[in-house]
Amino acid sequence: MANNGKKRMTLNQLAKELQVSRTTLYNILHEKGAYSEETKKRVYKALEIYNFRMNNHARNLAMNQEYKIAFVGFYSTRFGYFFDEIQAGIERAVEAYEDDGLHIITRYSDREDPGQQVQDLVELEEKGIENYIIFCYHYESVSPQIEHLINTGKNVILFSRRIPGLHPFCSVGCNDYLSGKLMMELLEKFARSGDRVQLLISEHNHRDKLVVGERLKGFYDALKNSRKNFELLEPAWTSPVPEVEKNEIRNVLEERKPDVILDFVCNLQEAAECVKENGKGDTVLLGYDIYPEVVPYIKDSTIDAVIYQDLPSQSFKAVELMFEYICYRKKAGEEDYYLPLNVVFATNCEYFENL
Amino acid sequence: MANNGKKRMTLNQLAKELQVSRTTLYNILHEKGAYSEETKKRVYKALEIYNFRMNNHARNLAMNQEYKIAFVGFYSTRFGYFFDEIQAGIERAVEAYEDDGLHIITRYSDREDPGQQVQDLVELEEKGIENYIIFCYHYESVSPQIEHLINTGKNVILFSRRIPGLHPFCSVGCNDYLSGKLMMELLEKFARSGDRVQLLISEHNHRDKLVVGERLKGFYDALKNSRKNFELLEPAWTSPVPEVEKNEIRNVLEERKPDVILDFVCNLQEAAECVKENGKGDTVLLGYDIYPEVVPYIKDSTIDAVIYQDLPSQSFKAVELMFEYICYRKKAGEEDYYLPLNVVFATNCEYFENL
Repeated sequence: MANNGKKRMTLNQLAKELQVSRTTLYNILHEKGAYSEETKKRVYKALEIYNFRMNNHARNLAMNQEYKIAFVGFYSTRFGYFFDEIQAGIERAVEAYEDDGLHIITRYSDREDPGQQVQDLVELEEKGIENYIIFCYHYESVSPQIEHLINTGKNVILFSRRIPGLHPFCSVGCNDYLSGKLMMELLEKFARSGDRVQLLISEHNHRDKLVVGERLKGFYDALKNSRKNFELLEPAWTSPVPEVEKNEIRNVLEERKPDVILDFVCNLQEAAECVKENGKGDTVLLGYDIYPEVVPYIKDSTIDAVIYQDLPSQSFKAVELMFEYICYRKKAGEEDYYLPLNVVFATNCEYFENL
Repeated sequence: MANNGKKRMTLNQLAKELQVSRTTLYNILHEKGAYSEETKKRVYKALEIYNFRMNNHARNLAMNQEYKIAFVGFYSTRFGYFFDEIQAGIERAVEAYEDDGLHIITRYSDREDPGQQVQDLVELEEKGIENYIIFCYHYESVSPQIEHLINTGKNVILFSRRIPGLHPFCSVGCNDYLSGKLMMELLEKFARSGDRVQLLISEHNHRDKLVVGERLKGFYDALKNSRKNFELLEPAWTSPVPEVEKNEIRNVLEERKPDVILDFVCNLQEAAECVKENGKGDTVLLGYDIYPEVVPYIKDSTIDAVIYQDLPSQSFKAVELMFEYICYRKKAGEEDYYLPLNVVFATNCEYFENL
């Protein structure tokens, strides 16, 4: 028996057992209506004996409660897939919990317009929303409003990036430092001592110290302990303008002909196209994330592997943690909740491409 | 709004809207008790208009239904971790669904005593159990009883291994053929052309054509298309007796000094110990599965990587598919349901070791 010996009993069964009406029992459990102190004691005693666990679904239904959570994020046309995946996870959570009263209000603003995001947060607060999952990019601008929400007792989960100095209910995201270390481990295992290694980093993310900065830190820290010696070429910081960036990637790869290319931010399809045109040979190409444009290059091994963290599971998890807290007062176990880092190859790509 | 425009309404709200009592509404929905044909039509019409979706939790509670599923498996002292992980997934499923009436009956018998497993199945059938998740090893002996269950209309999910000729509700497991192909891809990406490659395969699993046979098939098929040339040494089929096996592994590795060691079945800790003692150097060591004894060797990179399929998620999934079918008549989407194959390195091991 896998029910761990927990005795389950319905309210009806319990009422019968105690010879009280279902209404009385309901009143006692919800501390309303009229009942004698003696009956109350008898009920509480029985609850102890039968290890009665208030059925959460029953409670939600009985209370016909609605739990509102605001998911406040941003979009960027450049990395559209990112937001589709986040949305997919939110929808999965709604499906799982709507019968229990979960209701999600989503607000997305342009990544480069943090003022709009602040405005969204102000409006939601005016509407009386108590629970927020916040995904912001230019955090310096949004941080004071988030701090205000936390200080006035709102429940706040930070999504995808922690913000220095803020102490929300929890953060849900990716351990970027570890993802940088993992890239170094892949380099060590895929490449040979003496290989010339080119890092590609988008200027677009130059200032993003929270994610890309952490990744690079993890990478360089692990590099110090490497068993192999690599020749690291000067990193290429490429333009945020896609057409310019494309040529920059081509130029740097064709001029320097590195043995290993490590793509640190999402230009992977350009690098892959270039490697394929020039002949893959023994060139090693590694990067981050799976999105429709890179899938063919992963499947034909032009890209040797990518490090991937399941984004739909991340947004699902954020909603779940918030919901379980506001609904059942279940505390998140840790301040930073990290989703697993996967390494995706040609052969196991099918399991990750449509998550 | 992420609720997909679905209008949700409680029975109370609907009853109010239609100006019928909650009892009448309940009777109509459950097709019992007395009500006029006119009222029934009005209710059905309203259900259509409001896109009313019977609240599953409410229904389960109202019906106070118990859904019994028998999980009938085997144990083997040699690979104890395997069964702990399966049990962990079952417990997770019970936690998720017990409020909806899920009840799991588990029966484990010795792997080498398939007669006991047949006996378990017969007894469960006599008790009137309708739903079975079956994990068997010596399938030739158990197969007739499973076929009988299927033919007499029971719901059967096969766990971890399909059985040729049987057509259950679905199978939940690992794509072993693909896991063999993935091993070949790792070999190609980790090793150099000309490397001498030693396969270790336990004699214990020699006859297991369904799992190890499929893995080897996937491996050899992929080898044909390899860009690199490897010298495959004669595979070592090692003894089922642990102490004998240990020496066999040591002898074969010390005599042949392969560049690459591929462990196809679970002797990974012995191979790792041996590699560590003789000096890792450039030796590549790859294998399958994570269990407590191998974790330290993954974390210090004695083992370069393992292919791992999340077993607790597999047993959770099997219970979930069966439960959603018997409870909501939700059909499984495909006949074979495969869980993702992960590749675990030193740096991301922490995400997988305690699943």
